[in-house]
Amino acid sequence: MPPEKMPDLAEAELFGQSGSQIPHELKNQHVADIVDYLNKQSLAVLVDTISRMPEPWAVELLDFPAFEEASEVIAALPTARAAGLLEGMSADRAADVLRWIPEPQHSTIQGALSEETRKSLETLLSYPEGTAASLMTTEYLSAPADWTVRQTLDHIREVEDSRETVYAVFVLDPTSHRLLQTVRLRKLISADLDATILSLTEGKPAPIVASPLSTREEVARLISRYDLLAVPVVDSTGHMLGIVTVDDAIDAILEESTEDTQRMGGMEALDEPYMKASFFDMFKKRAGWLGVLFLSEMFTASAMQHYSDELEQAIVLALFIPLVMSSGGNSGSQATSLIIRALALQEVRLRDWFRVALREFPAGLALGAFLGLIGIIRIATWQLAGIYDYGEHWKLIAMAIGASLVGIVTFGSMVGSMLPFILKRLGFDPASASAPFVATFVDVTGIVIYFSIAYVFLKGTLL
Amino acid sequence: MPPEKMPDLAEAELFGQSGSQIPHELKNQHVADIVDYLNKQSLAVLVDTISRMPEPWAVELLDFPAFEEASEVIAALPTARAAGLLEGMSADRAADVLRWIPEPQHSTIQGALSEETRKSLETLLSYPEGTAASLMTTEYLSAPADWTVRQTLDHIREVEDSRETVYAVFVLDPTSHRLLQTVRLRKLISADLDATILSLTEGKPAPIVASPLSTREEVARLISRYDLLAVPVVDSTGHMLGIVTVDDAIDAILEESTEDTQRMGGMEALDEPYMKASFFDMFKKRAGWLGVLFLSEMFTASAMQHYSDELEQAIVLALFIPLVMSSGGNSGSQATSLIIRALALQEVRLRDWFRVALREFPAGLALGAFLGLIGIIRIATWQLAGIYDYGEHWKLIAMAIGASLVGIVTFGSMVGSMLPFILKRLGFDPASASAPFVATFVDVTGIVIYFSIAYVFLKGTLL
Repeated sequence: MPPEKMPDLAEAELFGQSGSQIPHELKNQHVADIVDYLNKQSLAVLVDTISRMPEPWAVELLDFPAFEEASEVIAALPTARAAGLLEGMSADRAADVLRWIPEPQHSTIQGALSEETRKSLETLLSYPEGTAASLMTTEYLSAPADWTVRQTLDHIREVEDSRETVYAVFVLDPTSHRLLQTVRLRKLISADLDATILSLTEGKPAPIVASPLSTREEVARLISRYDLLAVPVVDSTGHMLGIVTVDDAIDAILEESTEDTQRMGGMEALDEPYMKASFFDMFKKRAGWLGVLFLSEMFTASAMQHYSDELEQAIVLALFIPLVMSSGGNSGSQATSLIIRALALQEVRLRDWFRVALREFPAGLALGAFLGLIGIIRIATWQLAGIYDYGEHWKLIAMAIGASLVGIVTFGSMVGSMLPFILKRLGFDPASASAPFVATFVDVTGIVIYFSIAYVFLKGTLL
Repeated sequence: MPPEKMPDLAEAELFGQSGSQIPHELKNQHVADIVDYLNKQSLAVLVDTISRMPEPWAVELLDFPAFEEASEVIAALPTARAAGLLEGMSADRAADVLRWIPEPQHSTIQGALSEETRKSLETLLSYPEGTAASLMTTEYLSAPADWTVRQTLDHIREVEDSRETVYAVFVLDPTSHRLLQTVRLRKLISADLDATILSLTEGKPAPIVASPLSTREEVARLISRYDLLAVPVVDSTGHMLGIVTVDDAIDAILEESTEDTQRMGGMEALDEPYMKASFFDMFKKRAGWLGVLFLSEMFTASAMQHYSDELEQAIVLALFIPLVMSSGGNSGSQATSLIIRALALQEVRLRDWFRVALREFPAGLALGAFLGLIGIIRIATWQLAGIYDYGEHWKLIAMAIGASLVGIVTFGSMVGSMLPFILKRLGFDPASASAPFVATFVDVTGIVIYFSIAYVFLKGTLL
């Protein structure tokens, strides 16, 4: 977590009216607010501003995850300056910034780093994006189990400045350096100064840890479930690699839920804020899925072609196609969003698919019957009130519509609830374009259900 | 934040084999895991287990927000025991538990509380659910600005046990008791013991605060934006009412995003996990919106009735209705989920609606042209390959379908992107059933667009 405030330096030089200065009224603002202002500037102004700034200030600003063009700014600075700034930043953020700097600058800057920083960043960069290890920082606070509380507190005072958090102290085995326990600072400051830190953890359950390849959702869930301020990332030998802090977990949760929403809306997740995405990028991300859905939906035209004789004999059937089909899509998208979310929160697991199916089947029947009833009443009302004439067989038509709705809504609920399980089982994100995908699938099948049921009811009369 | 572990008490009595005991293997587990186990038990077993348990243990468990039936358990216990447990719990959780206890037990238990606790709970309960004040706890750590670091640390050691967090110390004006600043514990422990705490905050920007009626999303955003561990809730006179801690903010974010997903899926948000919701409750929450959408979608039937003459003359038009309409719905639901999320993250604000419209219009045109082209190719291919015969005017039909797609996809993108703004402007949650609502709206209008464009192309030939 970055400090709340810019360090006290020659402020007069920095805050002023010229283009490369930060406006005077931001002088006493939070870093988050200054970063907000900088995010609105052009890259040229940003590079100029950052390069004129005393290093500690620049580090403070660039360290903030919300600083959007950090990689571009670092890449545009002279190598020595760039390396100096990365040295000063927290390791997780520095790795994240370095990750997006293209070659050849990437290697040049990396080569100019101190060996310690370079090694630590190389390790962080070697893990795939979105894993616990790629989110973690190596700047945590650990102490051997045989240290006293006094020793530990003295150590904290000494290194406080260089640690992402000091509120959790990680207790290591003095010889093997394996993680044994965690102690919270609040316990330390009220403990006997001569006690060993291990003695403070007596009887505590094993510490909650993440493995380096845990996904960011898993890490976020651990932090939220166990109310942690930081979760240690531990390798298979029991050694700590780093920690993921609660603020990074919140960022991960927010980002994840944005991506889920966009995927549910039937598009690839954008990597950047809506207003910043280029026209072409936006087009690409939207056109892909839209095209796939369109191609799938073409089967509706094929299905309709198959029933074109029936349509010609009973044109009245065409009138209700959008109504009946959209009801299937709507019930499917309800079911799918329920299950996506239940899976995301682990309220429901993969093995529960059959229990879910057993719930959704009667729910679909009931909802279909409800809509079917409304549909029948609608047709009867229009017919009897003389608003529209559905012909002499209107009662049969109404029954066919009602029965189709029961069938299609039940089918929609079943497909909608099972699809997230299938996607998850196949290793995809259950949120991947589920709602529109379900709607499309249900549309095509819906036409077949609709005409089949209509055929049963209207055979010998209209058909 | 609750401690990680059950206090050390006569464990043998509690962990064992009988129904009202917690299984022995859970003895050394985290509270979250024990609560998970208890959530699977019947209410009768829960009440029995909690009532036999030493009070500090029961408090520990009930204090955990994930304990689902806490209100039911407390309501079923003898009044004195119930009041004792509430006294021991953190104020925000106790208020939340008491909130759901029905009369007459509610008043009876409230009457048995100590005056201090009763007053504090009454205050918390007087704020509407979902506001900062209803989420906050009154158990925070404050100190007069003229205290020294030593005095403050001594105070922390003394009261540590009864405070939700001690990592943020709230610095109050010694006479008016207004909130002046916040100091983090990490700064305190490395500071000069004789300095006043106010001197540690020199030059810091004004503290970030929430007002009592801020929504939980606003509070969560402050915590995530400024990387806080707790945000103070301050009334209009500048006095602190309590704090909202980061763990409550995470819970709020997760709950909010579940509700948004469910609303986007076209249903009322469920108040409980999917598997726990009763059949009737689930039916009610889903049938409501499904019915509304069905009634709106009925306008498609009316629109189709209006064009039934055209349909009878050119039955081929009916074949493409589902295809054309679903494309409008899909592009609308893409646009709407993009904007809902951008609004939720405040990347886009209400006043930006026109800038968004200026982005969506060309995006819609481009996407529509893309789909229109695919559609034309599809019809030409089927016709020329002899898969289906669209009649002598197939070229005109193909053009009509292509042009309709441009119109409907553009319209869908515009409606989809503007609806969240309209909902927000009217004071509704932009996520309210947007995707299916957009699809329905676009369906009805889509039929009118489709037949109007077809009429232009096919007038004098098929129509």
